[in-house]
Amino acid sequence: MEARQSLRLMLLFFSIALIFLFTWVNLPSTLPDTAELLDCDATSPWCTSSKNRFQPKQRQPPTNLKNPVPRPHPRSHVSDTPQHPLDPLTLQELSRVRTLLLSHPLFANRAPYALHSVVLEEPDKPSVLAWRKGDPIPRQASVVASVAGESHLLTVDLDKGGVTAQGAGPLSGYPTMTIEDMTSATWAPLADPEFNRTVLARGVDLADLACLPISSGWFGRAEEGRRLIKVQCYSSKDTANFYMRPIEGLTVLLDMDTKRVVEITDKGSDIPIPTAANTDYRFSQFDQNRRAYRLINPISIEQPQGPSFTVEDGHVVKWANWEFHVKPDPRAGVIISRARVRDPESGQLRDVMYKGFTSELFVPYMDPTDAWYFKTYMDAGEYGFGLQAMPLDPLNDCPRNAYFMDGVFAAGDGTPYVRSDMVCIYESYAGDVGWRHAESPITGMEIREVRPKVTLVVRMAASVANYDYIVDWEFQTDGLIRVKVGLSGILMVKGSSYSNIDDIPGQEDLYGTLLSENVIGVIHDHYVTFHLDMDVDGADNSFVNVNIQKQETSPEESPRRSYLKAVRNVAKTEKDAQVKLKLYDPSEFHVVNPNKKTRVGNPIGYKIVPAGTAASLLAHDDPPQKRAAFTNNQIWVTPYNRTEQWAGGLFSYQSQGEDTLAVWSNRDRPIENKDIVVWYTLGFHHIPCQEDFPIMPTVSSSFDLKPVNFFESNPILRIPPNAEKDLPVCKAAASA
Amino acid sequence: MEARQSLRLMLLFFSIALIFLFTWVNLPSTLPDTAELLDCDATSPWCTSSKNRFQPKQRQPPTNLKNPVPRPHPRSHVSDTPQHPLDPLTLQELSRVRTLLLSHPLFANRAPYALHSVVLEEPDKPSVLAWRKGDPIPRQASVVASVAGESHLLTVDLDKGGVTAQGAGPLSGYPTMTIEDMTSATWAPLADPEFNRTVLARGVDLADLACLPISSGWFGRAEEGRRLIKVQCYSSKDTANFYMRPIEGLTVLLDMDTKRVVEITDKGSDIPIPTAANTDYRFSQFDQNRRAYRLINPISIEQPQGPSFTVEDGHVVKWANWEFHVKPDPRAGVIISRARVRDPESGQLRDVMYKGFTSELFVPYMDPTDAWYFKTYMDAGEYGFGLQAMPLDPLNDCPRNAYFMDGVFAAGDGTPYVRSDMVCIYESYAGDVGWRHAESPITGMEIREVRPKVTLVVRMAASVANYDYIVDWEFQTDGLIRVKVGLSGILMVKGSSYSNIDDIPGQEDLYGTLLSENVIGVIHDHYVTFHLDMDVDGADNSFVNVNIQKQETSPEESPRRSYLKAVRNVAKTEKDAQVKLKLYDPSEFHVVNPNKKTRVGNPIGYKIVPAGTAASLLAHDDPPQKRAAFTNNQIWVTPYNRTEQWAGGLFSYQSQGEDTLAVWSNRDRPIENKDIVVWYTLGFHHIPCQEDFPIMPTVSSSFDLKPVNFFESNPILRIPPNAEKDLPVCKAAASA
Repeated sequence: MEARQSLRLMLLFFSIALIFLFTWVNLPSTLPDTAELLDCDATSPWCTSSKNRFQPKQRQPPTNLKNPVPRPHPRSHVSDTPQHPLDPLTLQELSRVRTLLLSHPLFANRAPYALHSVVLEEPDKPSVLAWRKGDPIPRQASVVASVAGESHLLTVDLDKGGVTAQGAGPLSGYPTMTIEDMTSATWAPLADPEFNRTVLARGVDLADLACLPISSGWFGRAEEGRRLIKVQCYSSKDTANFYMRPIEGLTVLLDMDTKRVVEITDKGSDIPIPTAANTDYRFSQFDQNRRAYRLINPISIEQPQGPSFTVEDGHVVKWANWEFHVKPDPRAGVIISRARVRDPESGQLRDVMYKGFTSELFVPYMDPTDAWYFKTYMDAGEYGFGLQAMPLDPLNDCPRNAYFMDGVFAAGDGTPYVRSDMVCIYESYAGDVGWRHAESPITGMEIREVRPKVTLVVRMAASVANYDYIVDWEFQTDGLIRVKVGLSGILMVKGSSYSNIDDIPGQEDLYGTLLSENVIGVIHDHYVTFHLDMDVDGADNSFVNVNIQKQETSPEESPRRSYLKAVRNVAKTEKDAQVKLKLYDPSEFHVVNPNKKTRVGNPIGYKIVPAGTAASLLAHDDPPQKRAAFTNNQIWVTPYNRTEQWAGGLFSYQSQGEDTLAVWSNRDRPIENKDIVVWYTLGFHHIPCQEDFPIMPTVSSSFDLKPVNFFESNPILRIPPNAEKDLPVCKAAASA
Repeated sequence: MEARQSLRLMLLFFSIALIFLFTWVNLPSTLPDTAELLDCDATSPWCTSSKNRFQPKQRQPPTNLKNPVPRPHPRSHVSDTPQHPLDPLTLQELSRVRTLLLSHPLFANRAPYALHSVVLEEPDKPSVLAWRKGDPIPRQASVVASVAGESHLLTVDLDKGGVTAQGAGPLSGYPTMTIEDMTSATWAPLADPEFNRTVLARGVDLADLACLPISSGWFGRAEEGRRLIKVQCYSSKDTANFYMRPIEGLTVLLDMDTKRVVEITDKGSDIPIPTAANTDYRFSQFDQNRRAYRLINPISIEQPQGPSFTVEDGHVVKWANWEFHVKPDPRAGVIISRARVRDPESGQLRDVMYKGFTSELFVPYMDPTDAWYFKTYMDAGEYGFGLQAMPLDPLNDCPRNAYFMDGVFAAGDGTPYVRSDMVCIYESYAGDVGWRHAESPITGMEIREVRPKVTLVVRMAASVANYDYIVDWEFQTDGLIRVKVGLSGILMVKGSSYSNIDDIPGQEDLYGTLLSENVIGVIHDHYVTFHLDMDVDGADNSFVNVNIQKQETSPEESPRRSYLKAVRNVAKTEKDAQVKLKLYDPSEFHVVNPNKKTRVGNPIGYKIVPAGTAASLLAHDDPPQKRAAFTNNQIWVTPYNRTEQWAGGLFSYQSQGEDTLAVWSNRDRPIENKDIVVWYTLGFHHIPCQEDFPIMPTVSSSFDLKPVNFFESNPILRIPPNAEKDLPVCKAAASA
């Protein structure tokens, strides 16, 4: 071997050893560098910031506003204390949890350990509902740890200082990966000489190598006892968009705990690495190399008196007629809790949703070949939807006057760190109409009443390797909550020996679309499942399927032969509420409080209103579909159970599907006039096309939670119309 | 009879006589008051403006903008001349058409006549495509007239001065009603003493009477030879919202041509008129009587350098990478023509859509009883979607910096008039993300690229009696066109003797929801069908159903048991393209140009992407469903045929369904590699609920026309991110 190669390998070995050191050794809690290492934002001195991103001026609120944007103090979080029973664990609390944990016998023998999850153990629902500001706030942490390869569930009582532990029981699968798991997996193959030889043989310098950790699912094979992952790599030479330059067919099977390579498969040695040309997406590159479109004049949402929402105590949002608690979460991304809307008649806040969050994802790729069949991601449970959420860009991810909220998480060794600007909150006005009515020429009345539509948006964007998921919770003054998912980022593509469709033999299935020379966009689906603990005017609710059915008349009855009738079916048990949407057998889906009625006697409620969506067509016994059986239906309803949060199971990594929402729901438990939880899955079928190369513009869909007989009259009438006298006077910045 | 009543009746007779005079007599064309009478906007001196509406200041563009909002000159339109072959007929042209028409033998004997439609006869497609600025612009008018009760189609050649006439052939049905038809129908029953007696017996003063003209459809009965309409009335006492105060069960069958009452039915004499309490919606009323929510600080979309679109020659819009022609239309509302997008590689404009517009609506109510069974509106063909579009409210219907476009239409006697501010065009920024990508913690690369989403919206709002339909054509920089329909306004409700659900016998079907004491919101559907003449990179296109199908693997083939495959089916004839959407049998729907391919060989195209929608479940032989058979499928494709514009037929009023899109499509004509037209129907099922009382907040849905392998790379990359330096500096108006 050349001396140069030897030197390179030694350096690599040394780097890997350092990583092992960080990951496996008990570090003293007073090591700030670890925390900073794992966070990357403009305030971390060691992070070099890309040209496009680092604009410190944007972080200062404009000073000419009467009501400056409410921002947290300088972002140390060191002195944060919990103000609400649902507040996430603070920096200090996370440090204390770590200290308490490490004194537990489980960690006593200094075996290698990792903390896969350290989050607040929420107090039980009745005590949260009863809590008032000023009352004591009980604090407990829920921890998922692996010690010497075994999973453990622990509860740490921060008030009393005690730690209780239990095994994870017979659950298959493993906890969410830590960041350290993911990053070390991308380095580990480099310790294997065969891997390095293969990469070089494929024509890629090790210095240009970019690798991704790809959850390998479970296919009933001999993974038993080992926590496995697959690693695939790309060339990052000459472009930031290495995703477009796969080293196709090269798959490394890795043991995540030993970091050793189990198997290397190379099925693509005859497949070239696609070119870097025309793949870069950085605006700085465009500006220089191609004429950018200065097509759109600057445009922004302005509020001369400042925004009309407040964020109290760091997490409680008050806007218009809404109040709710919002917090970042490493697995769910963002959690909305205690969403209540103010009744226009009584002025009182009324319960709508106790807790809503992204419970799991399922992103199966449609290619059964060796390097692709296992790509069936469950991004929340495997990777941590919140762990993957990077800082949002002020002015581009969120408009001016947005409020930014940081996430405070624990690293794999339990050390707390801050993910800055992870969630933003802002008021949105798109020029749309909340309500209007004008009298037509028919009646001749001179009436025109128009109320503009202004909403409040809570946004997070999870960047799970190539894909960026933008999740919005949008609140409207008419009581509606819209949950929106935007898919953006970059496709995961497959290298190919083909440069043109004409080269492809007639019978060959590409499993996708040829997008560029040697690049195939593989067909895939996305499913995003939401846990919606609806508490409509209280916890005891029922689920009502209001089925719309054709009725036929008898000839004497009417000149009209058919009409539609709403037939209400109250779900008694879970099987009554396993819903597949059908355009030609439509229903409304109501969550009602059977104990409360409107003045004229209709049960008050909220309804789930789907928009565009997709359904999984995979075979139910196909292992990924078994693991993701929560996508067998679009809607499910379960009785409230605090252990049933994650639709793919508590441990979805390499799970076998015995702990999913589908399994729980098939227990067919009673759900009438009880505390119930609704689950809704938003789906997308994605057949890639040219416009997805080299990047994929945002595609969105949504669903609504809409009041149905909840209000006696609609709150929107009380929103004033815009008037010229209230609007800002704006000048261009240069002339200011 | 009392003297007072006699006097009232005499005054009414006199008023009716005056209306007859205006409607039926040939007025000299130089009578501006007629035109003004029929238009109602702030510039008409005789119109008293409601307090909420008339704010002349809003009509002045803010003067501190560098680039003031492009506005037409003072709105006389008197000297407008056509600049583009698709421009609507101008004021002068309409006057000239009238003069030429009235000299035609058909009108010579001074029989009563009405002009139901006077619009541009568009030049044929090849000549429009070939036209360049500076070329001559041929001008013809297409007229639908009724003379002595017979329908006639006429063409007026404005260049040569000739008029050609032809009968309407064997078509059942009648043309779109004129405004005069509609308004006189609301007055005509008052000429009938029995009607007046009945109204008074129901407890309503004639002075408080508000009546609506309700298209009565066709039910195979003895309407033959007569053009009929039904009239139902409301009390407007103590509220602007007379819709909530129906005189239930009282239906007047009227002959629209003789204005005589044919039959009066009163099935509701025991049903009270619902109270006026809590029905008013005017903000001025709210402000005084109840505490309004000053919940939301002023918010607006600001552009310190002005908007980035231009409107040339009154109708040609240029924005970002889009150019298109837009014009108001009395039947369709708004028509988008010649929509072309600029290719980022070549810089050339490329055809996308030749013509897109609302072709027909279908709004069936689900109540088979006497006063409701016939409510099955076809709002475009019966009422004129554009005729019903009232002026938009600056700052509330459209944001600041919107451009307003007037409609110029012909009244029933042919006299031109102006419908001000009928269409608005504006740039929208909601704070959303056009595209983003951040590198996750996994790869450790410091990259965050975000492009904001800015769109261009063309909006119109048709107020068809109680309902307001907001139709938006929204253009995006990534080449997507979103067509959005918002339902707003006020419900059509049914009076009831019930005040509470408890009063209702178990078996009785309300046909809807009890919303208030004595008020039922009747279940109904809305269908809005769009004519989309797609010319993707040229006129010869094909329709491809890309069906997503489950494939199963053999055991040895892969650990993966199933995956999805895209199977392309090119539609050869119309029956191949009659599409019902199915969640569990999904497809993409492409319009491709089979003669043009991307560099790597994919056919270039655009796809129709549905979002949430509904399908009609009515029996196919139910007369309204027969007339509206265009709602039997969600998607249809027909070969381009200039006579096939209106999905319910040219004459949908009282039609029998022999001239609908379904009938044309069943001819099963070839549609492969030809000039084709796509039809998409957006549907809504509406089960009314309390929140719809006394007004109905906007509910929207949409569908997209999205490029698929149209661009080599996505234009969106070239849109710059927002930067602080470009944003405006805004002060509150009071402190300015």
